[in-house]
Amino acid sequence: MKIVILGGGATGMGVAAKIKRLKKDYEVLVLETGNYVSLGACGLPYFVGNEFEDKKMLFARTIEKFNESGIDVILNSKISNINFENKKMLVNSKEIVYDKLVLATGADAFIPKIKGLENIEYHKLTKYEDAEKLKELSNSNNIKNVLIVGAGFIGMELAENLINIGKNVSIVELENQISSRLYDFEISELIKNNLEDNNIKLYLGNSVKEFISKESKILARLNSEEIECDLVVIASGFKPNTESLINSELELSSNNAIIVDKFGKTNIKDVYAGGDCCVIENIITKKYCYSPLATVASKQAKVIANNICDIKSKFNGTIQSSIIKLFDKGVARAGVTENEAKLNNLNIKTVFIKDKDHTHYLKGQKDIYIKLIMNKDDNVIIGGQMYGDKDSILRFYCIATLIWNKTKITESIEQIDLPYSPPFSKTYDIIHIALSKLLV
Amino acid sequence: MKIVILGGGATGMGVAAKIKRLKKDYEVLVLETGNYVSLGACGLPYFVGNEFEDKKMLFARTIEKFNESGIDVILNSKISNINFENKKMLVNSKEIVYDKLVLATGADAFIPKIKGLENIEYHKLTKYEDAEKLKELSNSNNIKNVLIVGAGFIGMELAENLINIGKNVSIVELENQISSRLYDFEISELIKNNLEDNNIKLYLGNSVKEFISKESKILARLNSEEIECDLVVIASGFKPNTESLINSELELSSNNAIIVDKFGKTNIKDVYAGGDCCVIENIITKKYCYSPLATVASKQAKVIANNICDIKSKFNGTIQSSIIKLFDKGVARAGVTENEAKLNNLNIKTVFIKDKDHTHYLKGQKDIYIKLIMNKDDNVIIGGQMYGDKDSILRFYCIATLIWNKTKITESIEQIDLPYSPPFSKTYDIIHIALSKLLV
Repeated sequence: MKIVILGGGATGMGVAAKIKRLKKDYEVLVLETGNYVSLGACGLPYFVGNEFEDKKMLFARTIEKFNESGIDVILNSKISNINFENKKMLVNSKEIVYDKLVLATGADAFIPKIKGLENIEYHKLTKYEDAEKLKELSNSNNIKNVLIVGAGFIGMELAENLINIGKNVSIVELENQISSRLYDFEISELIKNNLEDNNIKLYLGNSVKEFISKESKILARLNSEEIECDLVVIASGFKPNTESLINSELELSSNNAIIVDKFGKTNIKDVYAGGDCCVIENIITKKYCYSPLATVASKQAKVIANNICDIKSKFNGTIQSSIIKLFDKGVARAGVTENEAKLNNLNIKTVFIKDKDHTHYLKGQKDIYIKLIMNKDDNVIIGGQMYGDKDSILRFYCIATLIWNKTKITESIEQIDLPYSPPFSKTYDIIHIALSKLLV
Repeated sequence: MKIVILGGGATGMGVAAKIKRLKKDYEVLVLETGNYVSLGACGLPYFVGNEFEDKKMLFARTIEKFNESGIDVILNSKISNINFENKKMLVNSKEIVYDKLVLATGADAFIPKIKGLENIEYHKLTKYEDAEKLKELSNSNNIKNVLIVGAGFIGMELAENLINIGKNVSIVELENQISSRLYDFEISELIKNNLEDNNIKLYLGNSVKEFISKESKILARLNSEEIECDLVVIASGFKPNTESLINSELELSSNNAIIVDKFGKTNIKDVYAGGDCCVIENIITKKYCYSPLATVASKQAKVIANNICDIKSKFNGTIQSSIIKLFDKGVARAGVTENEAKLNNLNIKTVFIKDKDHTHYLKGQKDIYIKLIMNKDDNVIIGGQMYGDKDSILRFYCIATLIWNKTKITESIEQIDLPYSPPFSKTYDIIHIALSKLLV
């Protein structure tokens, strides 16, 4: 049995490693278009910000290690003429056949059309080379002012890391609020205030109309004003790496991500797909969503490998859980926002409250905020967002668990026996208060 | 309607406040034997350890505030001749009648019989006066060596606080391991190593045979050796304050705690009880257990007040969740231990693993340990314990939530969509790994 995997990222290498653990005799070949595999892309902003210097730490495993376990990897692969019917393709002009194909081509930065962008040197942060270049530039004294386009995870994490190494950072964001797809307004406002308190200049509801090269500087003409900077980073989201598949029989979503079923199968026989090149089911809305996150990749990889090795296994979808550290704060979310619930015509009840994270008599007590969204038709909790001190935000694991299990909010759930002691919580945690308000 | 509440602790004042919010016209009288109400007893070890100096912070609300909301409080009450049939009693020799009575008398330190104990000045830590005295002594230079009898929560938290203010601390504990009722051996060992690493001298599987006064010192003769100290604290657990009720018609458990139903009712008409003077149902074993914790008190108080005010409300029991900070570590637990499961003849599968709390490339990555216990007959998770850095331990809220909801461990649960980013977790969290091992 020969398994060919397109893409050496988290999904591809995850599938490869798992198959080799399950079936030693399966031939596993990974075709990677770049010159490395197994990049921990989530670490890139921290690498740029000098949180660590050893680039090897960004790679979960070396190619040698993969080879040792019997996985073949071809770097810098040029793949063409994929023929799903005859199960073959050309790789660096040589024909390669497969029994099962796994598409794990990942995603790259989405680059919006901006006038003048082609005339300036701009950066992105999805590949290792991007980070290496950005790190080098950011650590040069010539670079003082950085403009980031997009206030998503990468944009915000990069902004924090650049502030930490002494840069002036501006973020231009098209939307009026931070990530309305992920957070409701109340939480977005808290994030906005945090970023501004940490000297990040935000231009919300704004966009770059034109970039102009001006000696060694770059001039960005926004809707509202002109700003000058030394470095431009585009962090406007992701697009799945599926260009070469767009005109094939492969079923794609509206953003050209691959549609797969719960078993990781595409619409083409013996072709699987997973990770950032796919859409997955949101278990609340039952709709496909594009959620290019490492957590999804690792779970889909396991499911795909299992199914290829005849172990029935199902990927159960996503609630788009995420957490982000922003300076000394953390923001976590899962499920649907109030806005998304309304767009899906759900009859909802919401609660948004502020409380303290632990007892008042111990040092370091901080504000903590929670928003919950419940479906009023069946009292099932369908969304949650939390903002608070980074050391207190992991209590959100309770909310993610309730949402994942489609928990009906009852008096019993309101009384959930969460562990308490003064350094960690209050006897009646903010979670209890919020749940009780859903029940009123 | 006249409500009389015996006890001005968390339960009693909780019931009083809630009733007054629900029914302004109900007469509410709290009878407290001590000279304060509303003590946050969990703060006492931290008060002793100078984590804060203002004693007012230990009291959730002042008597004046309670009075303002229409709640009467009699301090230093001497209560006698409780007559359940005629609904009356003597308070400071004056007859008081009630329509509904709430027993919220709390608990005091259990003092074991030790030869010579009566001849020395020993201390405990359940009341405010205990803490005030201990704080004064501990902050004196004359006191260098402290001996604590009992390695429960109070014993360990006090030990940490005394170490933090420069004392030499020894703990003598009858059991061979730390709190076998709460933790399995693997976790107890981690706690033991932590305490020892922080210079607490542990005498496990040992006990004080005799205390001897020796000039200004106290000599403690243990099973194994003799140790000299300046201060002795007894922290050997709690006993419910029910002495005056022992020979009444009130149904008590073997440790003389009051037996109540889910509505907070005792076996006597119109007599309710809650908090540290009661036993409650463990939802896993379905047996009564004695779990004198603030979290239980606050929830029972709400249930009792609701039922007194004709709002049907049920206390759903406990999984004996707890968390404790020990220096830079946290320990959390919920449900049953492996040992308790076996004593209950449950057919179980367990997993104990060690992993890292977050990504390797970010600073401060620490070991984290988890133990899970699953009922093999129905695959329901029935117990969990976690030990790790204090800033990473709140992820245990997921485990407490799974246990509280009697969650069946399936592939879907193994794929639980917990939020990830590098400063907080790994893509495949220790919780995922542990759950996956339960499924193998």
